Amino acid sequence: MRFDEAYSGNVFIGSHPNFEESEAVIYGMPMDWTVSYRPGSRFGPARIREVSIGLEEYSPYLDRELKDIRYFDAGDIPLPFGNAARSLELIEQFVKKVLDAGKFPLGLGGEHLVSWPVIKAVHDYYPDLAVIHMDAHTDLREHYEGEPLSHATPIRKVADLIGPTNVFSFGIRSGMKEEFEWAKENGMYIAKFEVLEPLRSVLPKLAGRPVYVTIDIDVLDPAHAPGTGTVDAGGITSKELLAAIHEIARSDVHVVGADLVEVAPIYDHSEQTANTASKLVREMLLGWVAK
Amino acid sequence: MRFDEAYSGNVFIGSHPNFEESEAVIYGMPMDWTVSYRPGSRFGPARIREVSIGLEEYSPYLDRELKDIRYFDAGDIPLPFGNAARSLELIEQFVKKVLDAGKFPLGLGGEHLVSWPVIKAVHDYYPDLAVIHMDAHTDLREHYEGEPLSHATPIRKVADLIGPTNVFSFGIRSGMKEEFEWAKENGMYIAKFEVLEPLRSVLPKLAGRPVYVTIDIDVLDPAHAPGTGTVDAGGITSKELLAAIHEIARSDVHVVGADLVEVAPIYDHSEQTANTASKLVREMLLGWVAK
Amino acid sequence: MRFDEAYSGNVFIGSHPNFEESEAVIYGMPMDWTVSYRPGSRFGPARIREVSIGLEEYSPYLDRELKDIRYFDAGDIPLPFGNAARSLELIEQFVKKVLDAGKFPLGLGGEHLVSWPVIKAVHDYYPDLAVIHMDAHTDLREHYEGEPLSHATPIRKVADLIGPTNVFSFGIRSGMKEEFEWAKENGMYIAKFEVLEPLRSVLPKLAGRPVYVTIDIDVLDPAHAPGTGTVDAGGITSKELLAAIHEIARSDVHVVGADLVEVAPIYDHSEQTANTASKLVREMLLGWVAK
Amino acid sequence: MRFDEAYSGNVFIGSHPNFEESEAVIYGMPMDWTVSYRPGSRFGPARIREVSIGLEEYSPYLDRELKDIRYFDAGDIPLPFGNAARSLELIEQFVKKVLDAGKFPLGLGGEHLVSWPVIKAVHDYYPDLAVIHMDAHTDLREHYEGEPLSHATPIRKVADLIGPTNVFSFGIRSGMKEEFEWAKENGMYIAKFEVLEPLRSVLPKLAGRPVYVTIDIDVLDPAHAPGTGTVDAGGITSKELLAAIHEIARSDVHVVGADLVEVAPIYDHSEQTANTASKLVREMLLGWVAK
Amino acid sequence: MRFDEAYSGNVFIGSHPNFEESEAVIYGMPMDWTVSYRPGSRFGPARIREVSIGLEEYSPYLDRELKDIRYFDAGDIPLPFGNAARSLELIEQFVKKVLDAGKFPLGLGGEHLVSWPVIKAVHDYYPDLAVIHMDAHTDLREHYEGEPLSHATPIRKVADLIGPTNVFSFGIRSGMKEEFEWAKENGMYIAKFEVLEPLRSVLPKLAGRPVYVTIDIDVLDPAHAPGTGTVDAGGITSKELLAAIHEIARSDVHVVGADLVEVAPIYDHSEQTANTASKLVREMLLGWVAK
Amino acid sequence: MRFDEAYSGNVFIGSHPNFEESEAVIYGMPMDWTVSYRPGSRFGPARIREVSIGLEEYSPYLDRELKDIRYFDAGDIPLPFGNAARSLELIEQFVKKVLDAGKFPLGLGGEHLVSWPVIKAVHDYYPDLAVIHMDAHTDLREHYEGEPLSHATPIRKVADLIGPTNVFSFGIRSGMKEEFEWAKENGMYIAKFEVLEPLRSVLPKLAGRPVYVTIDIDVLDPAHAPGTGTVDAGGITSKELLAAIHEIARSDVHVVGADLVEVAPIYDHSEQTANTASKLVREMLLGWVAK
Repeated sequence: MRFDEAYSGNVFIGSHPNFEESEAVIYGMPMDWTVSYRPGSRFGPARIREVSIGLEEYSPYLDRELKDIRYFDAGDIPLPFGNAARSLELIEQFVKKVLDAGKFPLGLGGEHLVSWPVIKAVHDYYPDLAVIHMDAHTDLREHYEGEPLSHATPIRKVADLIGPTNVFSFGIRSGMKEEFEWAKENGMYIAKFEVLEPLRSVLPKLAGRPVYVTIDIDVLDPAHAPGTGTVDAGGITSKELLAAIHEIARSDVHVVGADLVEVAPIYDHSEQTANTASKLVREMLLGWVAK
Repeated sequence: MRFDEAYSGNVFIGSHPNFEESEAVIYGMPMDWTVSYRPGSRFGPARIREVSIGLEEYSPYLDRELKDIRYFDAGDIPLPFGNAARSLELIEQFVKKVLDAGKFPLGLGGEHLVSWPVIKAVHDYYPDLAVIHMDAHTDLREHYEGEPLSHATPIRKVADLIGPTNVFSFGIRSGMKEEFEWAKENGMYIAKFEVLEPLRSVLPKLAGRPVYVTIDIDVLDPAHAPGTGTVDAGGITSKELLAAIHEIARSDVHVVGADLVEVAPIYDHSEQTANTASKLVREMLLGWVAK
Repeated sequence: MRFDEAYSGNVFIGSHPNFEESEAVIYGMPMDWTVSYRPGSRFGPARIREVSIGLEEYSPYLDRELKDIRYFDAGDIPLPFGNAARSLELIEQFVKKVLDAGKFPLGLGGEHLVSWPVIKAVHDYYPDLAVIHMDAHTDLREHYEGEPLSHATPIRKVADLIGPTNVFSFGIRSGMKEEFEWAKENGMYIAKFEVLEPLRSVLPKLAGRPVYVTIDIDVLDPAHAPGTGTVDAGGITSKELLAAIHEIARSDVHVVGADLVEVAPIYDHSEQTANTASKLVREMLLGWVAK
Repeated sequence: MRFDEAYSGNVFIGSHPNFEESEAVIYGMPMDWTVSYRPGSRFGPARIREVSIGLEEYSPYLDRELKDIRYFDAGDIPLPFGNAARSLELIEQFVKKVLDAGKFPLGLGGEHLVSWPVIKAVHDYYPDLAVIHMDAHTDLREHYEGEPLSHATPIRKVADLIGPTNVFSFGIRSGMKEEFEWAKENGMYIAKFEVLEPLRSVLPKLAGRPVYVTIDIDVLDPAHAPGTGTVDAGGITSKELLAAIHEIARSDVHVVGADLVEVAPIYDHSEQTANTASKLVREMLLGWVAK
Repeated sequence: MRFDEAYSGNVFIGSHPNFEESEAVIYGMPMDWTVSYRPGSRFGPARIREVSIGLEEYSPYLDRELKDIRYFDAGDIPLPFGNAARSLELIEQFVKKVLDAGKFPLGLGGEHLVSWPVIKAVHDYYPDLAVIHMDAHTDLREHYEGEPLSHATPIRKVADLIGPTNVFSFGIRSGMKEEFEWAKENGMYIAKFEVLEPLRSVLPKLAGRPVYVTIDIDVLDPAHAPGTGTVDAGGITSKELLAAIHEIARSDVHVVGADLVEVAPIYDHSEQTANTASKLVREMLLGWVAK
Repeated sequence: MRFDEAYSGNVFIGSHPNFEESEAVIYGMPMDWTVSYRPGSRFGPARIREVSIGLEEYSPYLDRELKDIRYFDAGDIPLPFGNAARSLELIEQFVKKVLDAGKFPLGLGGEHLVSWPVIKAVHDYYPDLAVIHMDAHTDLREHYEGEPLSHATPIRKVADLIGPTNVFSFGIRSGMKEEFEWAKENGMYIAKFEVLEPLRSVLPKLAGRPVYVTIDIDVLDPAHAPGTGTVDAGGITSKELLAAIHEIARSDVHVVGADLVEVAPIYDHSEQTANTASKLVREMLLGWVAK
């Protein structure tokens, strides 16, 4: 991680060398120690940066170029292996600095639990915050096999903090019955299976509000994102996920932060997931920051 | 394989420990010796069970949970390597026991030829049987390079036994010209390329009838099921196959047995095919047995 | 490579042993030395032939069989490793011989730059030539990091030769801003993101004209073609690409040559891309040559 | 995990169904959350059992058969993901039960930190315990980036508990300078690079003593064990490691417990590491328990 | 397969186009249907030929070149999938033709059972035949799970035919206790674990006799041959196996036929096993045929 | 590449941020366009740096730490894809700058041809230069299929420049007969198959002389370095290669530059080759530069 000091790690293509002059900050949260199934997302941020060298800097979707904005790549936040509580504290502290400096936080996971401290920090700045959540999984458990700090719990924590009616989940196709029931009983929005159509109906209701967007790469079908810990058939295509990003970009919501999590290079034998993730990051930058 | 004796092998998630008390029986048919191209489906059943540990037990598609039904996992039927004729006899004997006990047989392959003795046994119980067949391939050859017992012949054998007009194939995109012609001349239904729409038009005609469903995982596009012996571009998505299972579940047919075949873990580098298969098994259990 | 002499290399399934008696000629262009990202497409032609053994010879899409036409497989053109200029000369000379003999050239790449000398040779025969180009990338650069002979430049060279208004690109989702602007300013047609619908509107305008079709396998989504140098999310499915081939087959254009490039077996862990490519070649033969 | 209740998980080949009647207990410790580099050893125990089906039950090295002894496979100890402290407690409690029942504990990792609670428990029973440690790494840090519970610290903890002069490390080829110096200053034995020769000179000195043997699979060269978190060139061959096991078996030490750790199936593309590990387990059972 | 007719398949590098003029015949036996563990060796012969293109034609070990001898590559013998008995008949018939024509048979497997019909045919020509067998496994079972035609039985069949005292096994490290005992009781030579040293002591005793050499690639350690069905740790290096081939070449035995079996490309992720096999074939040609 | 300007790319672990203050310079030569077989070594330098993060900074072999010396990582020299002649010029220019600044050049390949311009530049500084060459291949061709600039020619060019009697090759096990003969006739030293023993006899003769060491990773057996373009069985172990580096370190030669080439991550499925390479680089730095 770097702010001012000399840094030598690979960075996302086209990133700006100076923190102060940048509008957005890319940072990695290389944590995967609470996952219950296949670990490996700790290497996600590094691989996304590495393959970003193959990206064109121009988006024919948005007709914008990366050089139109300035974003700083802070590298990965150094996290203590196997210590979830301390890791989440460090992430929260880091994001507060980014927000204090008035910059857009764009985080790369790591397991989904990393979104929890980020959203906590963002919520301090935007008490009226709404959260858009794209994922295969509800992530609404109170605890997972006894552990409240688990990759299965972040959205529940978010809902408890900002209120369930301010959380909007899309593409969900997996979870416990109790999670779906809890959402229903508490007025939390869940669009099962689909992303684009329900998003089109939700976005107008969020017009003008500050919104944080958290994307678990497994919202994509395993065909489009084999490189993740928990693959789940029946997901959306990368074309649909790109369209969802653009739909938000064209809407009247005010995106104030975002993350992309759960890319696990170990299972990504042709690097297609990492390449897709780096393209998604480009579109998030051009669609949400440059807006 | 087990019925009564102590057993120690991995089983499908949530399976019931007692055969007698169960409504359905999952069993593996680890045979791949007649395949002409890439072998390896003998390990399919074991890997499907192994990855089932990552499955949620609740289906948000059907709003049912695995605990709502009782299914016994009998393990793999021990088959003599390289002896096709004897293997088919052993499979038929096993399935007869399952049917004698009044249980729903849910088989895992193995190459597609294993469906032939299963359907033979099921047909003995249900002389009015219809077969729904989802596959990339016609499998209608009389013999393959001289061998009548081949992975390219099972549906022909079925059609000869129960009558071609009682066989309904979906998603077919590969076969010899003669196979398509034979089907046409003999009144056998083949829906080329598509599954869901033609299924919707066929199901009403089968209302009330006993139906066996055999799914070759290669009905999916290679993008969705790379882990199979013979991949063939232009297939359906896992989303569509899930919808087809649900369409059958909501119809008025009476599913009396089913199988899922041709998962070959060796080519399934990210385990996406095995994970998809285990989800399909869950939906088959919840949609067809729990019905 | 062979014309008359004894040959021992693997050939595309069903190919005719005699050059003179054939209507079409399949040939490989095993060159990948100007690629900027992941090399390996030099092995594409060999692997496409190798897996073609698993193909059915009948197309249920077109209701034709490979035995209905005669095509000769000339093997790979021997190219000097690392010498792009000389390689392009050798390719051009080879294709001229094919055209002199009145046969349909069907080339397998290799990197996309190989299409440039082929189209040059075809254009000599058909001055009224139009080019249909399916690709994820514009390939319209004048030079790439100083090199005019680069995998990023072939379509620009083609446009300069035959006139930009005679080039029709489909499925494009990546390129520099300047490339898209150059196309617009010069009247070159680019269908962004989609292939089938725009093709349906373009084909009638090309009725009666000689057309060369060049397909970069990366027009497919990475889910459908992981085995290529530069994967780019948001592409079309193999089902759509098959439909595009059939759309051209049913149109009134006169296909006079074609190629399929950028298959890189090294990244194709389950051989799905090579298998898809061999099926595409079959459909190209049956749809465009047999026509 | 199982003791008395019905169990259905895969078990090591030839294991005895009854805990009470067994002389040894195999158990998995599926923990990898403190590793600093590549995670994945949580799946090691399950894969070692799975591939054990391919093992011959006879050892031509020792001229003994697995049926000559009775060992119970207790499955994996359920550990809370991401909670290292609690995981170690659970492991220690489990091993105490095994020792209370008078059985030989044979543990499968998981990361190397799991050996620490095991040895603690064994030391309670055998205050005169010596530890033989085969590994590429010293594992002698006091803490790793601030964490005392880390995969880099277990042998230090052991040395602090039982006294450095009772710890004998073999095959070490990686560590910090300070670790080597600490060992030297405190009289701890380290055989750099080699295992067999130094073992031959150490074993006579341990004659008659109770010894615990902990083997990190990465003591093998990466050529022989690519499937592990931290590969390190310059290691020994599997032939040498087998010979070391046999050397101990033929010596006068009294092996009272053992483990094999750090097999990570994710990196073990041909399953060679898991197969090797399952053979090592067979030799440990036949050489050390059956003795 | 070809004898006289036109042929189009890939062949081993440098092979002669004419059967009659050749001294040796290379042929593939693409059978893997009786294997009990991991299938896939049916593709071994094809891949060995394919990678042979990367071989130098000169051996610095033997100071000879492939052009010094003439060998014909007959391609793979077409075998009926899943029919072991018929496959063995076809192999025997083929080898008889090779021997009738006075040529050296050099076979590529395929599972080890293919050696049985070959040796039967060779023994008809050389009643005084001795067999040198390099393997990790005894392969001395009378039947495997009831099947006498199994990959675990070929050497027993050979021993029964030519007499156990004429069979010499090297490198054996796996088998049932009964197999080792049978060998001992019947005077069959087994060198456990090692190849080169015991070979040096055996060869003088065989001076002047006709010898068939069968090499199972799994005699190599898994580090040197991961691409095979049944890997077994503790094997020899490729350097040692090369030396064994050269030791035989320099001895006074009269090699009259040979095979190399069990290469399974599916597990050979870096193609190292296939490349090693193709080098071994070159040395066998130069050392045993050219002699 | 960087000298003075801000740089953001990944660097070898422990490298010094300032060029001027450093004693050695690490630089990548990402070129693979003249290779005749499997390309991909262009990504070697980047991957070696990436995995260096897992290295300990202390060498128990040499009892030295990386912090004892200062080395600058200049990144990869930007080379024009597919233009061999220009690439070699750029490499030569770069190395001249390194030498002008009085620093030790430590290059990472890339294909072996990159060593040619480096040695040319080093020879300008040290007219009495000797070259130690460790490789599986002679690399002594004058041209390869007509191309004088080929990965098969660099050592011949070196021998022509500095005189064949000043070139010492070790571990060679592949080449054309003519290459071995040329070496013999011209007094060039070639140690076939072995490295360590012949090196011990050669080093005393080079005492006091300036020596450049070029290591092709394929001098290792494929078991130890599967991740390279041309694997060749019968090589040395990584233990032996480490010993060779240390033997040179302890000798009286004056190492004035070195390289490690041909690491190709694409074929290195468990990253073992890259990890081994990064360890070799550490030992080269500590043994040859720190000396």
